[in-house]
Amino acid sequence: MPITTSDHPPLPLPLPQLPEWAAFVAAAKAASIRVNDLRLVTAAGLQLDLSGQSQSPAMSACAKALLNTRHFDSLRTQLLAGQVANATENRAAWHTALREPAPIDEVAAERRRMNEFVRLADSERRWRNIVHIGIGGSDWGVRLAVSAFGYQGMWRNVRFVANIDGHAIAGGLAGLDPRDTLIVLASKSFTTAETLQNGQRAVEWLRAAGVANPMGQVVAITARPEVARAWGVPDAHIFKLWDWVGGRFSVWSSVSLTTSLAVGSEVVAGMLAGAAAMDAHFAQAPAAENAPIQMAMAGIVNRSVLGYGSLNIAPYDFRLANLVPYIQQLEMESLGKSTGLDGQPASVPTGPAVWGMPGTDAQHTFFQWLHQGSDGAPVDFIVCQEAEHDWPEHHKSLLANCLAQREALLRGKTYETALDECVAEGMPMDRARWLARHRVHTGGRPSNLIVLPSLTPYTLGSLLALYEHKVFVQAVVWGINPFDQWGVEYGKVLAKGIMKELSADNAAENRASHHDASTAHWVKAFAKSLGV
Amino acid sequence: MPITTSDHPPLPLPLPQLPEWAAFVAAAKAASIRVNDLRLVTAAGLQLDLSGQSQSPAMSACAKALLNTRHFDSLRTQLLAGQVANATENRAAWHTALREPAPIDEVAAERRRMNEFVRLADSERRWRNIVHIGIGGSDWGVRLAVSAFGYQGMWRNVRFVANIDGHAIAGGLAGLDPRDTLIVLASKSFTTAETLQNGQRAVEWLRAAGVANPMGQVVAITARPEVARAWGVPDAHIFKLWDWVGGRFSVWSSVSLTTSLAVGSEVVAGMLAGAAAMDAHFAQAPAAENAPIQMAMAGIVNRSVLGYGSLNIAPYDFRLANLVPYIQQLEMESLGKSTGLDGQPASVPTGPAVWGMPGTDAQHTFFQWLHQGSDGAPVDFIVCQEAEHDWPEHHKSLLANCLAQREALLRGKTYETALDECVAEGMPMDRARWLARHRVHTGGRPSNLIVLPSLTPYTLGSLLALYEHKVFVQAVVWGINPFDQWGVEYGKVLAKGIMKELSADNAAENRASHHDASTAHWVKAFAKSLGV
Repeated sequence: MPITTSDHPPLPLPLPQLPEWAAFVAAAKAASIRVNDLRLVTAAGLQLDLSGQSQSPAMSACAKALLNTRHFDSLRTQLLAGQVANATENRAAWHTALREPAPIDEVAAERRRMNEFVRLADSERRWRNIVHIGIGGSDWGVRLAVSAFGYQGMWRNVRFVANIDGHAIAGGLAGLDPRDTLIVLASKSFTTAETLQNGQRAVEWLRAAGVANPMGQVVAITARPEVARAWGVPDAHIFKLWDWVGGRFSVWSSVSLTTSLAVGSEVVAGMLAGAAAMDAHFAQAPAAENAPIQMAMAGIVNRSVLGYGSLNIAPYDFRLANLVPYIQQLEMESLGKSTGLDGQPASVPTGPAVWGMPGTDAQHTFFQWLHQGSDGAPVDFIVCQEAEHDWPEHHKSLLANCLAQREALLRGKTYETALDECVAEGMPMDRARWLARHRVHTGGRPSNLIVLPSLTPYTLGSLLALYEHKVFVQAVVWGINPFDQWGVEYGKVLAKGIMKELSADNAAENRASHHDASTAHWVKAFAKSLGV
Repeated sequence: MPITTSDHPPLPLPLPQLPEWAAFVAAAKAASIRVNDLRLVTAAGLQLDLSGQSQSPAMSACAKALLNTRHFDSLRTQLLAGQVANATENRAAWHTALREPAPIDEVAAERRRMNEFVRLADSERRWRNIVHIGIGGSDWGVRLAVSAFGYQGMWRNVRFVANIDGHAIAGGLAGLDPRDTLIVLASKSFTTAETLQNGQRAVEWLRAAGVANPMGQVVAITARPEVARAWGVPDAHIFKLWDWVGGRFSVWSSVSLTTSLAVGSEVVAGMLAGAAAMDAHFAQAPAAENAPIQMAMAGIVNRSVLGYGSLNIAPYDFRLANLVPYIQQLEMESLGKSTGLDGQPASVPTGPAVWGMPGTDAQHTFFQWLHQGSDGAPVDFIVCQEAEHDWPEHHKSLLANCLAQREALLRGKTYETALDECVAEGMPMDRARWLARHRVHTGGRPSNLIVLPSLTPYTLGSLLALYEHKVFVQAVVWGINPFDQWGVEYGKVLAKGIMKELSADNAAENRASHHDASTAHWVKAFAKSLGV
């Protein structure tokens, strides 16, 4: 293990104390979107078009100086070498090791075990049904890969169960044949409440159906094999991940066993290769041609200089619907922090809200707001140059819509143009003048365009790693730790307390005395309806 | 038709010119979340808990004065009477007429026709497969109802196809038996590009499979029956909606034919009844006990006074995953406007970005950001008191998590508490002091809690109507038109132009000369890859 530990995390200064930050902000404010300049960066098979972002030579120079003063080069080296990048939890964030073409032995060994498991299952035509049980990072990546490459259906029937809501596991098991169903439990700690409780329901369901050895149909993926073993999972069915793999990066681990079973081991191999190519690009490309760095700096301008509160992800690809929650988790768990590594409150706004939906659906859902709402949001348009279907007219239309929406956000529509339109429609002048104002589009709204040659495992892997590294760069500039998630813990602790209060062994009068009035009210009401 | 037309829309003054607005803002700024006060409103079977919002007696009084000066009472009366509520398009927005218990004749007639179609199909056990083709308002409502009540599977196999992306229709048709597949086309104008092109592909697929009369397996739902007829749909298969039904309100129309076929006519009837009950509540309840009004005013405080840029929707119910895009469309198409009805730019921020995900999934995806991010967002928690499954422990856990997350957002965690925790964990004091800062939660973040007794068609209908009317109230206060969507049109026009440029009959040199550099680049590159 090349992991070193440290009690002395670097303590970046608050941004307002840095002259480099002041210079960057001034340059960004003076910059603008230059509609006559094409700004393209090529990286690991993708093309990132940043033409729709503010830019200027001064800004580029200031960005470089800012990264230098943040010791970006050495932090990147530390990250990629598996040194302690996660200071508050005192461990590495070494997901890049999982996709190394020639990985360290223990990673290679787990990859082989996983592939062998799948090969055997396929050759025996076993496990017609897979129920993948995981949540958050143990769920979204697999869902994404399976919907991207299995959207026309698969010979295996694959279900995902994440939520503690009992309707989720009820729906997940409904109609399946228990005798040919594999239950995959993915939990790094193997203590995730949702995953273990849903897993318990699945095992009971197998047993109730007369399956002789239910645990023989259960697989566990975890960093704590001993806990899975104690839970009853046979050794041969336990696949390992490591403490230095964050949950939101676990798609690169054996968590992708389900992906392999669903759409093939070659999909997982391709994703790893694409991500590794992006890692190499991130490590080596000079800043000006480094896609994650450029994308990160554009995002920082939008968020911390121009004040945009959110980022919209618009994959113009039906197959990438699950890209949105995937990136939501990656960005918002990583950058949803307002304490700097120095322990001081962050002095500029950090990570934005991330939301979105595939276009063209999004055009009929919320693009109205992007065009004419008060705030608007920067948009990441993502599109494939080539399609995998038989209708070129559909693909042409998809491409045209993607370009048109982006252009409309950039260009806007002036009152004068809108007025001409209204007049041309034959309206009386009074109404035309009034109505034209409702047809004005502000314009000047920033966007990225990411073009994949086509959707392959390789380009998808590359795309995900692009966002991962973008997030890392932003965290370095903002001076926050992108690898912890303390905000996830607190609610869990409170939930445990309320669970107890909802249970029979609590006398009603002891309940809820320390809560606000509303929580106290509902604890009592819910305890009553639960029959307590 | 009780619809009247008018060329003289009301022209509300800009908010900053109104003393009532200034008073409301002042009262809201002086108000706070009162943790010792329970503030519950009951409406059409739902309970809306507003305890997590800023409140004060002064604020309530000022809200009433503000609504008065906006002529809210008469605008509500106009809306519900089917008068012109949509001034820029000069028509009514009379979706409430569709759910009247005793509707006008033409509405009643279409309801009967729809139910008769379903009764016959069910009795003949026909249409084992339904492919519902629609987009935006013709899609989300049906998806929502089908996933809410059909999450355990249905005897009919129901697919939804919306996106122009050819992979969508490829996936939608894959594996179905064409001989027993009904194609449902939902498009108000019957000119929606996505719907007609996907419909064309479906008809070709029927024909290629040797179906003798493909159009006999097609149903159309539209406000322009003559266009559907010209497209080849038989009269008996055309169901009508009306010009005065906005697309985003069309779930109350025959668009729900697919819902009836999938999960039963009684589901549609129940939803209509629940929505009608909420309409009656909205029409009659005094302002202080009127759920849509109270929810609207709290949202205006969060958006236009406290400056929150987005609103998070957190249904603590796996079955309500599609509630998020449904409300996204409803809110963002309606309130994503920055021109007032007076033709002046809106003077305060209007509709927020709306996003979300069911809890507990959301807790493992982006709640980190809600707790510790720079901005945070108000959250609408939605939960059912009773569940429809066999595992009370799961439901208890779901309820506890919902209450706990809400409490954590409200209460926060101080540095002192976090420090005590760190010390209790045995950390050296230096590290404890540093790490504790990373565990601080700001707190004070507003939320609503909406409690349904259980998820039934009635409560779902009531919930959707609650949001509809909330949106209407907000539009009245902001002085904008919630019923148009000019921002959807402009991109369509640009897309048509780019479509032409991507086509063979355009000489390469004529392409793209009027575009920005990036759009011009991609028009050329995409034309090349399309083989033009």
